[in-house]
Amino acid sequence: MSEQPEVPLKGRSLVTLDDISTHQIEELLHKAAYIDSHRREVAHTCDGRVLATLFYEPSTRTRLSFETAMLRLGGSVIGFAGAQLSSVSKGESIADTLKTVSNYVDIVAMRHPKEGAALVASRAASVPVINAGDGGHMHPTQTLADLATLMSRFGRITNLTVGLCGDLTFGRTVHSLIETLCRFGNVNFVLISPDELKTPQYVIDRIKATPSCSYVEVKDLAAVIGDLDVLYMTRVQQERFFNEDDYLRLRDTYILDEEKLSHAKPDMAVLHPLPRINEIAVEVDNDPRAAYFEQVKNGMLMRMALESSLLGDELPGYVPLQPKEVQA
Amino acid sequence: MSEQPEVPLKGRSLVTLDDISTHQIEELLHKAAYIDSHRREVAHTCDGRVLATLFYEPSTRTRLSFETAMLRLGGSVIGFAGAQLSSVSKGESIADTLKTVSNYVDIVAMRHPKEGAALVASRAASVPVINAGDGGHMHPTQTLADLATLMSRFGRITNLTVGLCGDLTFGRTVHSLIETLCRFGNVNFVLISPDELKTPQYVIDRIKATPSCSYVEVKDLAAVIGDLDVLYMTRVQQERFFNEDDYLRLRDTYILDEEKLSHAKPDMAVLHPLPRINEIAVEVDNDPRAAYFEQVKNGMLMRMALESSLLGDELPGYVPLQPKEVQA
Amino acid sequence: MSEQPEVPLKGRSLVTLDDISTHQIEELLHKAAYIDSHRREVAHTCDGRVLATLFYEPSTRTRLSFETAMLRLGGSVIGFAGAQLSSVSKGESIADTLKTVSNYVDIVAMRHPKEGAALVASRAASVPVINAGDGGHMHPTQTLADLATLMSRFGRITNLTVGLCGDLTFGRTVHSLIETLCRFGNVNFVLISPDELKTPQYVIDRIKATPSCSYVEVKDLAAVIGDLDVLYMTRVQQERFFNEDDYLRLRDTYILDEEKLSHAKPDMAVLHPLPRINEIAVEVDNDPRAAYFEQVKNGMLMRMALESSLLGDELPGYVPLQPKEVQA
Repeated sequence: MSEQPEVPLKGRSLVTLDDISTHQIEELLHKAAYIDSHRREVAHTCDGRVLATLFYEPSTRTRLSFETAMLRLGGSVIGFAGAQLSSVSKGESIADTLKTVSNYVDIVAMRHPKEGAALVASRAASVPVINAGDGGHMHPTQTLADLATLMSRFGRITNLTVGLCGDLTFGRTVHSLIETLCRFGNVNFVLISPDELKTPQYVIDRIKATPSCSYVEVKDLAAVIGDLDVLYMTRVQQERFFNEDDYLRLRDTYILDEEKLSHAKPDMAVLHPLPRINEIAVEVDNDPRAAYFEQVKNGMLMRMALESSLLGDELPGYVPLQPKEVQA
Repeated sequence: MSEQPEVPLKGRSLVTLDDISTHQIEELLHKAAYIDSHRREVAHTCDGRVLATLFYEPSTRTRLSFETAMLRLGGSVIGFAGAQLSSVSKGESIADTLKTVSNYVDIVAMRHPKEGAALVASRAASVPVINAGDGGHMHPTQTLADLATLMSRFGRITNLTVGLCGDLTFGRTVHSLIETLCRFGNVNFVLISPDELKTPQYVIDRIKATPSCSYVEVKDLAAVIGDLDVLYMTRVQQERFFNEDDYLRLRDTYILDEEKLSHAKPDMAVLHPLPRINEIAVEVDNDPRAAYFEQVKNGMLMRMALESSLLGDELPGYVPLQPKEVQA
Repeated sequence: MSEQPEVPLKGRSLVTLDDISTHQIEELLHKAAYIDSHRREVAHTCDGRVLATLFYEPSTRTRLSFETAMLRLGGSVIGFAGAQLSSVSKGESIADTLKTVSNYVDIVAMRHPKEGAALVASRAASVPVINAGDGGHMHPTQTLADLATLMSRFGRITNLTVGLCGDLTFGRTVHSLIETLCRFGNVNFVLISPDELKTPQYVIDRIKATPSCSYVEVKDLAAVIGDLDVLYMTRVQQERFFNEDDYLRLRDTYILDEEKLSHAKPDMAVLHPLPRINEIAVEVDNDPRAAYFEQVKNGMLMRMALESSLLGDELPGYVPLQPKEVQA
């Protein structure tokens, strides 16, 4: 954890979580918890601020979360989403669009189908840019939502046994969560997937390079569910399989229902990045272990923490974390 | 009128007008009138509130009305409309979307092409849901706009002769208005349509079951226009007819122009749910009896009354109706 | 300059710049400069106001500029853009849409592909309508942005040598700028284009009819760049040429790069209506003479000045121009 000297968040962009220190991540988690219990006090933190949501591909859930976050802080929003963007894409470069929009707003949340687009945008803009997803690459605020959910359930993001289940090959949220947890250390990963959808080697290498972390790879959720503090579900898509028989044979193994959940610890937390199709049975929603709609709320709270921090707008009454407390 | 005990509006959803009592409808009408004459006083009633407009099919007029209503009360808005929704519809259930959005906002206005969607939504959401139209089914705030227009023109919604003209078979706004007026009683309905587009039997039965109401069915607008206090126009669409000859022969009978209007009472009110194509001649717009653009304003006012009531936000200075005054 | 007596801006629409006096244009320029240096003071000028952006064709850049302008004045925004509009266009006339929307909002910015649409809209609406572009016709706020950029660079919009380069046949922004500068007089125009894309005769006639203005038509940017105070670039599109050879031969002549710029005056200002494709090399962006992103900011400031003026909302602390000062 030999990180470089910390650069304050004010005025900066967030393209990947590697842009910020572990202490800053903990500060954001601390802020999110403060915001949740002080909704009224923070409601004017960003009065007069304007956020632009530039969504070159639609992602309604993420867009609404960024927008609500700014509104709940007192600011306002402009933007475009998917079909509305035609005139922007009329041959104009991302750099020119960001230089233009920098004249209008105080902060930008951008989603783009192309890997690297957020980095290009952040370099052209004269205001902070938050990466709201660029291709299969990075989606840092989803990982912040995941971490905040662990924090709200366990009061910590370390010393946990974290199961990740389903498609571990293509699920970028899973990779990003593993890599970020490795920065904090002291996590046991249980990687649960069919052979066709195992965790990529570079992610395994990241765990191996972290002395305080360990991992096992297994195929059967039911066999390990009793060991887990956290179960992070993802969807197993049929098109990932060579033949339908394999898919049909395996599918049910990776569907969480009340029967499987009955073997889990009473305080295990079930996470899912949503949207969920059928990989978690609807009956699970009412189980107190279901944390995936809380995760949605935590995503909004972390975006509130992030937006206010990058803008340099201080939350009234908020007392920052002491660095000493953090470095346990 | 043996209604069940009244449940307060605060925190509830509105799927159909049957969800609320006649006294609550009168209260909303009273609030709308108060709002109209106290625009400044009510401008911060919903400060800090957020409305989501979830429009699974576009209906720009209705969406803008709900949004303006919230803005005019001091709140703000997020949402999607039609083409923007792709990621939401990516297989996610309405219930999951509403559970997600409940984490962001204080109240939802939803439009969906499928009958029953609003009921499903209201059950999944943890915040109030207003039905902004679901299929051919229900669109309760349109009826509220109609009632408010009668109230602003006549000071009452009873003891009126109400003509409904045009397509009485498929026009859901007409059915909903008739059924709601029957709850209050003392209305004479004049049902004006070609044979091909008569009022459905279940609506006729509703009138028959109301001792204080009566009806006649006629084909010729000109013959009855002099008797009417209210003329509710709807469009006669060519595709409803078996052959073009019938359509062409009948069409003009159901077009309101200044000539026909010259036989009407001087204080008759002309309503129309809009958009209007050619069933009301443009020359009528300047006649003081034209009330259809007022109806648009009344729709916004009723949505302001409804949104603030479901949120439980009290209008500054507003004195509620006394139940005694209501039960005349 | 024998203009008609001035009608105050409050409550009026802006369809073309001919609707307002030169003194009012100067007042708007003066207001925009005031707004830029008093952002905080003006942030509540339009509290409680609502703007509708009715964009029947997408123009994201323009829409976001109008919206930000209203938000920066404390107001809020509703509207539609492109794909969202389907229900509006469902056969409803522009007049009916504007009569409807007039019940919701305080001011409208409308863009429409059809020439004359803004005039129709302004006549139907009971609130001010700003033309945000109608067909190939008029786009007055772009010209206001151009003028504000001259004003901020030179402190004046007269006594300048203004080069206009590229497609002078089809570029409506160029025609509108020339015509408006002629109203103020004392400008030397240098019209730089290939033979295929020369300035239309009616624009030339406008210059000829202005005794204090002059013009030359040339083909070569490099030969005249040293004489210019202002260089207004536009794009030369391949489809305007009869054959590809001509296009390829000419293209580079109308691309501005650092080499050409090295022959220009040190305080020349480079303008462009954006989006830019390749007609200005990216290397020019960092040259202090590049004014095209400033132009974006000035567009927003002029829209703030315009919106507040048409609404009749006074900017706190603002002292109006004295007519005497203006008529130099």
